[in-house]
Amino acid sequence: MQRLPKLASLAVEDSGWGYFLCTYKELRAGRSGSEFLFLSLQDATAQVVAKVMADVSRYKDEFEAGEFVRVEGRGSVYNGQVQLKLSAIRRVNPEQDRREGFREEDCVLSAPRPIDEMWAELQEHLRGVRNDHIRVLLNRIVSDHEAELRVWPAAQQIHHAYRGGFLEHLTKMAEVGRFVANAYGADWDPVLAGIVLHDIGKLQELAYDGGTGSYTRDGNLVGHIALGIVMVREAVHGIAGFPDDLRAHIEHLIASHHGVREHGSPVEPKTVEAFILASIDELDARLNQVRKAIAEDASDGDFTAWHKRLGRVLYKGS
Amino acid sequence: MQRLPKLASLAVEDSGWGYFLCTYKELRAGRSGSEFLFLSLQDATAQVVAKVMADVSRYKDEFEAGEFVRVEGRGSVYNGQVQLKLSAIRRVNPEQDRREGFREEDCVLSAPRPIDEMWAELQEHLRGVRNDHIRVLLNRIVSDHEAELRVWPAAQQIHHAYRGGFLEHLTKMAEVGRFVANAYGADWDPVLAGIVLHDIGKLQELAYDGGTGSYTRDGNLVGHIALGIVMVREAVHGIAGFPDDLRAHIEHLIASHHGVREHGSPVEPKTVEAFILASIDELDARLNQVRKAIAEDASDGDFTAWHKRLGRVLYKGS
Amino acid sequence: MQRLPKLASLAVEDSGWGYFLCTYKELRAGRSGSEFLFLSLQDATAQVVAKVMADVSRYKDEFEAGEFVRVEGRGSVYNGQVQLKLSAIRRVNPEQDRREGFREEDCVLSAPRPIDEMWAELQEHLRGVRNDHIRVLLNRIVSDHEAELRVWPAAQQIHHAYRGGFLEHLTKMAEVGRFVANAYGADWDPVLAGIVLHDIGKLQELAYDGGTGSYTRDGNLVGHIALGIVMVREAVHGIAGFPDDLRAHIEHLIASHHGVREHGSPVEPKTVEAFILASIDELDARLNQVRKAIAEDASDGDFTAWHKRLGRVLYKGS
Amino acid sequence: MQRLPKLASLAVEDSGWGYFLCTYKELRAGRSGSEFLFLSLQDATAQVVAKVMADVSRYKDEFEAGEFVRVEGRGSVYNGQVQLKLSAIRRVNPEQDRREGFREEDCVLSAPRPIDEMWAELQEHLRGVRNDHIRVLLNRIVSDHEAELRVWPAAQQIHHAYRGGFLEHLTKMAEVGRFVANAYGADWDPVLAGIVLHDIGKLQELAYDGGTGSYTRDGNLVGHIALGIVMVREAVHGIAGFPDDLRAHIEHLIASHHGVREHGSPVEPKTVEAFILASIDELDARLNQVRKAIAEDASDGDFTAWHKRLGRVLYKGS
Amino acid sequence: MQRLPKLASLAVEDSGWGYFLCTYKELRAGRSGSEFLFLSLQDATAQVVAKVMADVSRYKDEFEAGEFVRVEGRGSVYNGQVQLKLSAIRRVNPEQDRREGFREEDCVLSAPRPIDEMWAELQEHLRGVRNDHIRVLLNRIVSDHEAELRVWPAAQQIHHAYRGGFLEHLTKMAEVGRFVANAYGADWDPVLAGIVLHDIGKLQELAYDGGTGSYTRDGNLVGHIALGIVMVREAVHGIAGFPDDLRAHIEHLIASHHGVREHGSPVEPKTVEAFILASIDELDARLNQVRKAIAEDASDGDFTAWHKRLGRVLYKGS
Amino acid sequence: MQRLPKLASLAVEDSGWGYFLCTYKELRAGRSGSEFLFLSLQDATAQVVAKVMADVSRYKDEFEAGEFVRVEGRGSVYNGQVQLKLSAIRRVNPEQDRREGFREEDCVLSAPRPIDEMWAELQEHLRGVRNDHIRVLLNRIVSDHEAELRVWPAAQQIHHAYRGGFLEHLTKMAEVGRFVANAYGADWDPVLAGIVLHDIGKLQELAYDGGTGSYTRDGNLVGHIALGIVMVREAVHGIAGFPDDLRAHIEHLIASHHGVREHGSPVEPKTVEAFILASIDELDARLNQVRKAIAEDASDGDFTAWHKRLGRVLYKGS
Repeated sequence: MQRLPKLASLAVEDSGWGYFLCTYKELRAGRSGSEFLFLSLQDATAQVVAKVMADVSRYKDEFEAGEFVRVEGRGSVYNGQVQLKLSAIRRVNPEQDRREGFREEDCVLSAPRPIDEMWAELQEHLRGVRNDHIRVLLNRIVSDHEAELRVWPAAQQIHHAYRGGFLEHLTKMAEVGRFVANAYGADWDPVLAGIVLHDIGKLQELAYDGGTGSYTRDGNLVGHIALGIVMVREAVHGIAGFPDDLRAHIEHLIASHHGVREHGSPVEPKTVEAFILASIDELDARLNQVRKAIAEDASDGDFTAWHKRLGRVLYKGS
Repeated sequence: MQRLPKLASLAVEDSGWGYFLCTYKELRAGRSGSEFLFLSLQDATAQVVAKVMADVSRYKDEFEAGEFVRVEGRGSVYNGQVQLKLSAIRRVNPEQDRREGFREEDCVLSAPRPIDEMWAELQEHLRGVRNDHIRVLLNRIVSDHEAELRVWPAAQQIHHAYRGGFLEHLTKMAEVGRFVANAYGADWDPVLAGIVLHDIGKLQELAYDGGTGSYTRDGNLVGHIALGIVMVREAVHGIAGFPDDLRAHIEHLIASHHGVREHGSPVEPKTVEAFILASIDELDARLNQVRKAIAEDASDGDFTAWHKRLGRVLYKGS
Repeated sequence: MQRLPKLASLAVEDSGWGYFLCTYKELRAGRSGSEFLFLSLQDATAQVVAKVMADVSRYKDEFEAGEFVRVEGRGSVYNGQVQLKLSAIRRVNPEQDRREGFREEDCVLSAPRPIDEMWAELQEHLRGVRNDHIRVLLNRIVSDHEAELRVWPAAQQIHHAYRGGFLEHLTKMAEVGRFVANAYGADWDPVLAGIVLHDIGKLQELAYDGGTGSYTRDGNLVGHIALGIVMVREAVHGIAGFPDDLRAHIEHLIASHHGVREHGSPVEPKTVEAFILASIDELDARLNQVRKAIAEDASDGDFTAWHKRLGRVLYKGS
Repeated sequence: MQRLPKLASLAVEDSGWGYFLCTYKELRAGRSGSEFLFLSLQDATAQVVAKVMADVSRYKDEFEAGEFVRVEGRGSVYNGQVQLKLSAIRRVNPEQDRREGFREEDCVLSAPRPIDEMWAELQEHLRGVRNDHIRVLLNRIVSDHEAELRVWPAAQQIHHAYRGGFLEHLTKMAEVGRFVANAYGADWDPVLAGIVLHDIGKLQELAYDGGTGSYTRDGNLVGHIALGIVMVREAVHGIAGFPDDLRAHIEHLIASHHGVREHGSPVEPKTVEAFILASIDELDARLNQVRKAIAEDASDGDFTAWHKRLGRVLYKGS
Repeated sequence: MQRLPKLASLAVEDSGWGYFLCTYKELRAGRSGSEFLFLSLQDATAQVVAKVMADVSRYKDEFEAGEFVRVEGRGSVYNGQVQLKLSAIRRVNPEQDRREGFREEDCVLSAPRPIDEMWAELQEHLRGVRNDHIRVLLNRIVSDHEAELRVWPAAQQIHHAYRGGFLEHLTKMAEVGRFVANAYGADWDPVLAGIVLHDIGKLQELAYDGGTGSYTRDGNLVGHIALGIVMVREAVHGIAGFPDDLRAHIEHLIASHHGVREHGSPVEPKTVEAFILASIDELDARLNQVRKAIAEDASDGDFTAWHKRLGRVLYKGS
Repeated sequence: MQRLPKLASLAVEDSGWGYFLCTYKELRAGRSGSEFLFLSLQDATAQVVAKVMADVSRYKDEFEAGEFVRVEGRGSVYNGQVQLKLSAIRRVNPEQDRREGFREEDCVLSAPRPIDEMWAELQEHLRGVRNDHIRVLLNRIVSDHEAELRVWPAAQQIHHAYRGGFLEHLTKMAEVGRFVANAYGADWDPVLAGIVLHDIGKLQELAYDGGTGSYTRDGNLVGHIALGIVMVREAVHGIAGFPDDLRAHIEHLIASHHGVREHGSPVEPKTVEAFILASIDELDARLNQVRKAIAEDASDGDFTAWHKRLGRVLYKGS
């Protein structure tokens, strides 16, 4: 039996075995009254629906949602979407399965670019900062949180909600922001500081265990904007001679990055840099949502099904 | 010549001399083409319009807006409001005028209750805190900012915009809040912490020189909610063993005290205590506005003129 | 077999018999295809889910939703919530069961305080009214509707939606309102009138048969605000010499008690008393909702599940 | 000297004398420093600006705003609008001037159709009511308020704000409403009741002394919607056997006629008749505003100046 | 076996055979675990639920949703609504069934008035246009699209969503609009042009195959307002001497007919005619929705169930 | 006497003569009762206030607002802003003054970059289009409107409201848009089409005579979005084989470029390209506003005065 391909390229004719993360598991009753297991499996490239139709009683206690699993099965099509029909499933036994090639990071939905490459790009941006205070500040915060910044998602579910999504969001915003700041004669160093730090409070707002994020107590009660400002303030206190107007500007970039109060910013943009940051943040998040909705849409025709959060259908092209 | 009464009780038949703060000064042209000085004067009890109609050229450079002045004049009525018609005005000469009884605090519009009395009441509240961590925290922040907390206004202009207004706002909220918290079985200590600290960031948001407040750089760029959370976080760091859930709750009270995101709260109330704080804060500010609008209204009839900010007229009673 | 405890203190290890109101009944198919009865049972203290898993065909026609029932069963836990597993159920036979201690009011979800105690408190408030006209008016309306005011809920479902909820809402508002009115130098008598009468139109807006309320024709077509004003106007006509400005103020309190037009008030608060009434009404309703959501939440962790109407999660504490 | 024409047809070349109502009077200083009187004068057909440039000191105390005046003057043009330049002005001496043809109603801005004609049309509508209860109700209320209904304006300033405007609004709505109700198979009698009664509370909301309206205490505190419902309820009590569902429907029509809660309706339309009433009421008010704005616009070109309340310019045609 | 009556008059006691359009088909599992077919069937007069409970495996592949079917069955009642219980069902065999009286148009939910009658009425309106340019324009566009205008629905689902609904919407608006335009002295010819053309872009916005409409690429990407303006502009180009201000006014009527920008009008009404058009369009659509909701409501009592789109219940009358 | 410098670099110590456009002229009365002329003068670089204090009666009829003038004067400071005090002013005599170096384009407020340079850049973008149909379309429309595109402002007053502002807006958006489109893997050709054509309807919406723009009949009645779509449709008709889906996408870009319906877009973005276009359009317009507000602000301190349209103050930096 051969190994199944990456889920992003799974086809009906594929069959074999593979390692995945099971993110959802439910025992359902079919039309005929018989039970089956309804599952969501993911690897680094995509998430698919999987079903166990036979020997349900044998497999149903072999694993839980949230665990890595080894499955055997074949592709099938339902409502136009490719799914997996499983003939066997069990939880991963790390010791044993690692010898067969199991690696956690291969089984978690991930940003399309390799993390090391994005990380190197972020470091390159940090090296390019001309203002000494900003460079020290960013290096300190980024290195203090390297572990999280490398693998966290950017949000719980709306956009970039996968491994490395936070880093992907930062690097894409830095790529775009540098050009835009330059085009408008804005000060690039604070814009980059805003990009790197605008969501830094999310490291305290969310808890991420390698699967999906959930809100922490501080996340629910204080929110990532105020949490981020506190983090910056504390870091600034450790840097001798950090200019107070610069500190205020960076905190302003964090405070105003949602653009309007209705979206949770306690103050609204008041500098060219803050307008740019709020604009590119929203565009990057929005386009990530749009791309995902188009990619996952299973409907026929040129348009996606109704997208509730965006309040519209999207054009998939002719 | 006798001394003029307090402005709150000024009548048409009064005449004499007095010390005031001049908060506004403009050289205007009358219908006949002749110039006169249009002024706003205040003492601790009220603010009135004053005019210099004669010898304008002699007096117009004798003082500036923002200075304390000594005036001579008499009451007059214009559009139903009592004003002062001045026959003489000059800036205060502190050394000399202090001997005549000039005191700065008598000339600045002030809360109706004596500051020492309100301050004692606040201290009484602090002594009553049962939770040791909260008591230490409040005592530390309050004593660190005693000078400002005693005399600052609560806002630049909307409500409690006079000397001691901040303290009046806190003590009235504490009086009401204690009863309400008790009535609803809420935890009083955190509610009191929310009352004392919800606007503490205004000490950095506004600059107050004894006259009117103005926004600081941090006030415009970061806003008093995030500033207050930073102040609390820093104070908490200095208190050994401060429980983290308590810290989060207090920061939540500050973050959510405007009640809804549209009014600048990055998060909305999620505890009974936070709902109570937002409710009594809004009621206290609103009633202060309403009382002021009714007191200052010069229109005839049972209702005030249209109040733009409140979007309605108010009933003065029959 | 012993009697089951009050539902508010039901535990997994309890078993026995009891009388309850069945408010919901549905025949459901389980995963295995077998049928079971899914029920909601309530007594004065709480409402719980109950299930009949065995002998379904025997019990399913023994009672209907809306009837009082006698059950036998034991506690069980499902998704973290205590439920009842029933081994027997039948409708109450009033004659016979009353001898065993059945009382309707014990089986209907009720305000936590005894009704007689709340009623006495309301009467105490009415006796304290100093304005003769207001006292006569309130006594007349309250005594005319004693039967409803003692047992009705305050709303169909949003807040205080249980037996005695209307009275609980009034007495709590009176307790808080008296303090707040005094603190702000407001006129207590009209505030009390507003508290007692603001929702009086609900007696015509809703129909309540001891179970849940439903909207009447007048409730849907005219609404409780206009209905209440009509009731007050008619009562005032029967009181010689009732001052017209007082009548207008009381009608204003009713008309404006939702605070803003968007929430159905045709006019907005224009007096200190009206601002206070709208504020304490909203706070009391909101806190009742919040307490209920926290009490009923079955999710793990420090926060409730998403509360759709409030648009947020709530903090249950750590 | 000949008599001036009606103001609606005043032209630059006209000169002579006339009687008018002076609705505004202000002593202004011109660019050269000299004073002049700036006035608004109206007769039944229009309102114009008038100025007294010469002998100001002689005329300025000869009359007050709100009085009927006798003027002499000639047409002039300012910013494209025809105005009156006055050479003489004095208050009317009723005894003497009546002999010269002065009549109050000729000097007050009025609906374009004669009041008697509109009144007859309204009576015709009332006679056509088939439902006995509605006919009795409408006849009773209309005859009780004939004096006001004949001459009042429909609003203080937004639409139909002139003598007879209320009646014009009712008769036009009845004309249109009858056709629309018939076209949609709606029940005409209740629609007519809604038309006649929807604003009946304005007779208590506004005070009208023949000039402009002002809000009464009841108008500000209770509002015309609740006031109208009370009036209807009281009238219905005096009619034996008035069906309760009919009463509820008529009160619903009044309660919901602003269409949405944001505009002050405590309930929203729930019957075909209520939807029709709200629609034709808004259209009639809106078109009256639009016609007025176009008629009074003094700007060049095809479009009016910016209309603040409507939030747009209006097309005057090419 | 006799033929079933029209669905609008179907009663429980009816039984027999008939031709219908099946618009929905789903295989469902009953409580007992057995399967049944849940269907929606329509004829010209109404749409009803139908079920096949027996011989499901025999009938389930005999037809698909979207096909015309021949059924045998009898009336039954479920939750207060009349349904059809089918004993047999198969797809129509056009050749054979036409001989038995099958006609497509009899089986598609249709406007209550005969299409030929509405078409004649529209033609009558067109003949009455006095402005030559408008008459030519309307005749050209209407005759170019006669096929669609006769049978299309007016919308995908909100209002007039049935065969002939577009034409019904136009003719009813023309009937009402002519009266209203005349009552307000508006120019009828452009109002009629607005009525006929305001939704003309829907012919490109929607695709209609005789069943329900769906959005086209142009409908989703450009929208019927801009599409309609383009259609008018192109038609105008083909008419020599069409006055440009008239063209602009007609395009304005199309552009502004949703009344406010929030509803998708890029400009808001700026002429009396445009205000009238937007008003009668909204009223006609709204009343069609209201009538439908009342007609289809299956709940007991005087009010419909909650209508989600309208955000209210509706009064069905007592 | 030497020539005055460009207004953007005018200083208090400058004096001399110059040519300017007078955009505003008003005869004002000073405090002393004497008259003076209050003017706005502009050249390509800035707009300043100018005053004629002496010999007013001699100069006041020597020119009108909207005319080019020759002035003599010197710099002065008022409220912190540099102004011009004029000792002489007259309208330009083109024949004679051209010999002295007068050129209209030097006297009209203009984009900071030379028009020829921006035009060349736009042409460069057009040459780079890979899709033949788009290239032909853009070239045709751009060359047809070269005269307007070179010199028009982008809006009447909100942003880029000066000579060449339209072209500046297009070229800056093209510069930024190309990078952003590439960064997000969007299709650059349609994005460029959207940039060049999104405001093309403004050429019919506004009338521009070299001074300020004003709304045309079509601008007020139809609006630039629908006008632009019509222009594109007509141009597309002239290009053989233009793919219909491409046409629809380009029209969608125009239709949706305001981002949300509330801002006047009849449809909202449904493609990655449309989201990008709306985002960069808003950012470019917003930053132009912000830069202007900061540049023109005359207040002291780190922040501008309150900016009404933006609803905030802006940070000028420390």
